[in-house]
Amino acid sequence: MDSFLDKIKSAKKIAIFSHISPDADALCSSFALKNIIKFNFENKFVDVFNDGPIGQLYDQILKDEVINPKPYNNYDLAIVLDCPTLNRIGKCEEIIKDIPTVINVDHHETNNKFGDTNIVSPISSSTCELVYYMTKGLGLKLNSTIAKQLYQGIITDTHCFSTFSTTNLTYQAAADLTKFKFDNNAIKKHYFKNNSLGKIKLLTTALSYLKLYKNAKLITMKIPYKAFEETNATFDDTLGIVDNGISIGEAEVSAILIESEQNKIHISLRSKGNVNVGEIAKKLGGGGGASVAAYQAKGDLKDIEKQLVTTVFPYLNEDKEKEEIIF
Amino acid sequence: MDSFLDKIKSAKKIAIFSHISPDADALCSSFALKNIIKFNFENKFVDVFNDGPIGQLYDQILKDEVINPKPYNNYDLAIVLDCPTLNRIGKCEEIIKDIPTVINVDHHETNNKFGDTNIVSPISSSTCELVYYMTKGLGLKLNSTIAKQLYQGIITDTHCFSTFSTTNLTYQAAADLTKFKFDNNAIKKHYFKNNSLGKIKLLTTALSYLKLYKNAKLITMKIPYKAFEETNATFDDTLGIVDNGISIGEAEVSAILIESEQNKIHISLRSKGNVNVGEIAKKLGGGGGASVAAYQAKGDLKDIEKQLVTTVFPYLNEDKEKEEIIF
Repeated sequence: MDSFLDKIKSAKKIAIFSHISPDADALCSSFALKNIIKFNFENKFVDVFNDGPIGQLYDQILKDEVINPKPYNNYDLAIVLDCPTLNRIGKCEEIIKDIPTVINVDHHETNNKFGDTNIVSPISSSTCELVYYMTKGLGLKLNSTIAKQLYQGIITDTHCFSTFSTTNLTYQAAADLTKFKFDNNAIKKHYFKNNSLGKIKLLTTALSYLKLYKNAKLITMKIPYKAFEETNATFDDTLGIVDNGISIGEAEVSAILIESEQNKIHISLRSKGNVNVGEIAKKLGGGGGASVAAYQAKGDLKDIEKQLVTTVFPYLNEDKEKEEIIF
Repeated sequence: MDSFLDKIKSAKKIAIFSHISPDADALCSSFALKNIIKFNFENKFVDVFNDGPIGQLYDQILKDEVINPKPYNNYDLAIVLDCPTLNRIGKCEEIIKDIPTVINVDHHETNNKFGDTNIVSPISSSTCELVYYMTKGLGLKLNSTIAKQLYQGIITDTHCFSTFSTTNLTYQAAADLTKFKFDNNAIKKHYFKNNSLGKIKLLTTALSYLKLYKNAKLITMKIPYKAFEETNATFDDTLGIVDNGISIGEAEVSAILIESEQNKIHISLRSKGNVNVGEIAKKLGGGGGASVAAYQAKGDLKDIEKQLVTTVFPYLNEDKEKEEIIF
């Protein structure tokens, strides 16, 4: 951590990066860290880069911030946030390749320590939680803009404190951050109580295709392309639907097959922990962690579902009854 | 608060009460307060009473606790938790009428201060949060059993920290309580990630009946009796479904009509705050607060829906387009 502080202190021009298709944690940890550096150290020049696309949901995060400025400065320090591997920064590799020193700050267990300095904390619920505790640990100051940014990363990555990654330290960070003046109810409303009609329609469609296999140990849902045609919904509106499957008491694995374009299928997998869905996704050409994973496939929705189900079956513990229940 | 402590100190036999059809906050604040008194003061005799029925979801709270003991002792102090009015304790009024002193501990804004001592804190997310801060304020000790009980009341009453009643103090309480040793992930799983198949089927049914009125300002959903017949679902499984309606961006009011028995309809109402649904429910023979209310009705599901919609319409702000969108 001293090394982190020394590197910040000796740097003049800093570039901050996070992963492609950023979520709130990636964007907020980037801007928060920029603002922490500028608030605590005089005359630092800090730029934030991201290889989008950035979902509309995050418009309010971008509002008062500059992203992807041009021309580039001659940066002497790069900080990469929320990326388990360096290639997750996408096209920004073009910029980082000329920067002599890289600090890697991340909360993913699979982080491969690609930095010259690596601050990797898998017990943190989010990179924003980690940035908060780094700031606190280094005795740096916060303000309400920074607190609001860090809080957004924490509540989104923990699905409003409901994930198992939420710890005592997460609650403490939320308690400390909400002492600063910002409207935390507006943030909750924005992320969690602001469904579009299209989103509710997609949820209805997905649930209508819900299938149970192997005594409900495997749950699948589908959203065929026609559901997108019939609604104004977008791919972003499908987020979280898969969690309805894994919430079912008996479920070990839950999957949603989303046909976002004709015959182009995105498959999201969830596990309660006994089955490693990252391994299953890898077999099918994708990746991810033990409990959250995904892959892409091309072809007929029914065929892709059959392939998935057949691949998952050997991972499920058999019990006496081998019948298949489908409703 | 001194008065509270003095009364506890001078009492020998204490009876604790909470509201009929108790939720986790009512049960947990009762048992937690009993355990706090017994852990901090020697030789106190404390009994907990509740006029059920108690949902199966709360079986684990009851497990190591004694509830509704007989015969009654000659209590010299009554503490009533989580009740805005004394009649909310139901049949337990029979027991309390002989107790000379009543302490009223509650977080409802509508509390009518029925006690000899009244500790009413509408800024608390839950009675468990209030009991935690009373304990802290009075310098009393906690243990992990008590911490686990208080945490359960807080996470259930705040829907896992997602309600607007969740404040900085709620996060701080959660941070302090989860420092004690208990499995907070198991609690989250029990209350929030443990849907029955029946519950998911009822959600699917309700969403399939979703209707939008007045440019989606009013949302209705229905669960006809046949859905209960076709599934193993119970009335408890309908909890929370109405929140899908009010989560829609444009919605001002959301309602669910649940036909729990043939022609016997339970209607739950939610509001974003501009429309007082308590007033609407009162007009139709029920009651509740400005944003959460309910009433019962008998008759044909369609007729009851028509009556509801007609009653709600005048409360919605009209805008230029008066068309009705239904899908």
